[in-house]
Amino acid sequence: MMVGSLMRRMVVPWRKKAPLRHRISFTTMTHHSNAFNHSHASQILMSPPLVSLDLPDVWAPNSSHFQLQVPSPAGNFSNEQTAAVINGLMIADEIRSRIASEVRRMQDSIGEVPGLAVVLVGERRDSQTYVRNKIIACEEVGIVSTVTELPDDCTEDELLNAVASFNADPSVHGILVQLPLPQHLDVGKISDVLSLEKDVDGFHPVNIGNLAMRGREPLFISCTPKGCIELLIRSGIEIMGKKAVVIGNSNIVGLPASLLLQRHHATVSVVHAFTKNPEHITREADILITAVGMPNLVRGNWLKPGVVVVDVGTNPIEDASCECGYRLMGDVCFEEAVKVASAITPVPGGVGPMTIAMLLSNTLDAAKQAHSFT
Amino acid sequence: MMVGSLMRRMVVPWRKKAPLRHRISFTTMTHHSNAFNHSHASQILMSPPLVSLDLPDVWAPNSSHFQLQVPSPAGNFSNEQTAAVINGLMIADEIRSRIASEVRRMQDSIGEVPGLAVVLVGERRDSQTYVRNKIIACEEVGIVSTVTELPDDCTEDELLNAVASFNADPSVHGILVQLPLPQHLDVGKISDVLSLEKDVDGFHPVNIGNLAMRGREPLFISCTPKGCIELLIRSGIEIMGKKAVVIGNSNIVGLPASLLLQRHHATVSVVHAFTKNPEHITREADILITAVGMPNLVRGNWLKPGVVVVDVGTNPIEDASCECGYRLMGDVCFEEAVKVASAITPVPGGVGPMTIAMLLSNTLDAAKQAHSFT
Repeated sequence: MMVGSLMRRMVVPWRKKAPLRHRISFTTMTHHSNAFNHSHASQILMSPPLVSLDLPDVWAPNSSHFQLQVPSPAGNFSNEQTAAVINGLMIADEIRSRIASEVRRMQDSIGEVPGLAVVLVGERRDSQTYVRNKIIACEEVGIVSTVTELPDDCTEDELLNAVASFNADPSVHGILVQLPLPQHLDVGKISDVLSLEKDVDGFHPVNIGNLAMRGREPLFISCTPKGCIELLIRSGIEIMGKKAVVIGNSNIVGLPASLLLQRHHATVSVVHAFTKNPEHITREADILITAVGMPNLVRGNWLKPGVVVVDVGTNPIEDASCECGYRLMGDVCFEEAVKVASAITPVPGGVGPMTIAMLLSNTLDAAKQAHSFT
Repeated sequence: MMVGSLMRRMVVPWRKKAPLRHRISFTTMTHHSNAFNHSHASQILMSPPLVSLDLPDVWAPNSSHFQLQVPSPAGNFSNEQTAAVINGLMIADEIRSRIASEVRRMQDSIGEVPGLAVVLVGERRDSQTYVRNKIIACEEVGIVSTVTELPDDCTEDELLNAVASFNADPSVHGILVQLPLPQHLDVGKISDVLSLEKDVDGFHPVNIGNLAMRGREPLFISCTPKGCIELLIRSGIEIMGKKAVVIGNSNIVGLPASLLLQRHHATVSVVHAFTKNPEHITREADILITAVGMPNLVRGNWLKPGVVVVDVGTNPIEDASCECGYRLMGDVCFEEAVKVASAITPVPGGVGPMTIAMLLSNTLDAAKQAHSFT
């Protein structure tokens, strides 16, 4: 069955109101932005290739790794202290500026620009908002974007055909299918069909396998975990040897976040819905990434003083005082955590903008790869 | 360059001395072997398909999962108590008997038997021993095995050609390249070339990705981790909700073991060479899997009373009193651990025989799949 009659295909249908970067201002600064500006001019992200992190295992019981150590908190704290707030908006903005430059350079050099195709099924308000934000972000950096909308009750074949047509389109370098999908559609089948070279969301099992395995490099790393690690690196937070706890084990965030932290040599524990005493394990974390979808799940007494908190949760909470009728809350009780942590990402303005920046970065990488442009 | 001149190709070149199952006797019993014999007659392994384990996440702060609980050790213990010793030889023997029956049934029904091809590079004594044991095990259950030996200094092309020729051979249903390889050979390239349908070692990134991701099922699960879980299940040890620690993060054992435990809803922490205070994390474990390759790394005081210990380490230690000049030791100090744990696998006679049994099981599955035999 042909899908054409059911599809609306649009090019950048939503107009931005104002560039995201001007909407919210922060007083905190990232630690390393200057260092990045000067010493890493030739690369957009600070995250290194994963294979470059692979180190030989040296199990030496007498080395410092194996000596009992008194935990040294990553910062000073008191009842009133506020943690450094990691400014995801500012970091993402910096990355997006660099992506925009690279897109211009690509266009000037070879007359090509990166193209992103988005497939949106159904009429979920939150999905529509996420897609709109991605499209606006594409437009700002010069990436051409295309959206295919399918109705809530579309068949699996219709969805797979939409993906297949983007696979075959040489002007499309990255494809993403906005999740979640209606229940009758199998997200696994879409990953199987979606071209590995255009899997800018990094959800293909080959990309997940290569993310997990030492000695291998995925073509794309899932945008949200990649954004979390980039935030940590740009905030000067060392990962190697740290105890990291990931709360949530979704295929989209929790799983790839835990695998990525492991490639960076953190000691990773994954807490999920079947974990007993999650607060006990969480209190051991030097670095905590939460991706659950439960507002305020993590309270201040779940945290070790000095922990670095990366809050992926984006939970809409009714709030009549807000223009749109709701506000966003993270999985972590920010007011309590900010008194215990040494650094924390806010919601909104933390991981969210980084996810979009990483999508743009992956799409640029895909286009460079397709056109052998360096 | 053709590889033919460098290869010796043999069919079952090593004769067994005596069936493995008669060599060592144990006094301990597995808990559930009778239950298995009677209620699971139609399947060989007790491990369920992974997708059947996928459960919806229900994050409920007031549920019992989230209440602080006093740890209840899995068994009684004292300074002198010996843990139950999990008899890997006996369990593996039971599985191998069932595989032999299935191979006969396949031959009687469709005139086909499973075929396993092994590629051995170089002359490492331990690798030669492992390969010999695998070939003997194949012969015992009626699987036809073929070994290709390549010299230590063979080129990557020669090795890849050997794998490619087995990919194309319809009488070969499973292929394994014995690891470790000489340093100049890239194990990653071999995984990429080896047919996914014949990857009975489960090392292909697609199989690792599908092992990691909820909602997906790998074609094959790596033999050693699969054997570890089968041992736990057959010994009546519940995995869901338990704290599991995996020591070692190799692509071959540690990584897939941690992913598999996670699919079974354990709360998993991975300890590796860069972990600070590994004994601190290890002491939290209800289930401990060690795959490091350091004899006696894990001492009695690393263990929580009642822990279940699965020791993958197989470290040869010089011992003039042994006929062969050495004996095998695990990563865990058995004499100390047996006084603290509620159950423990011995070395030898624990995980080792299970690894081979899982290889046979995977090869049988590959042959059934290839011939659509159920």
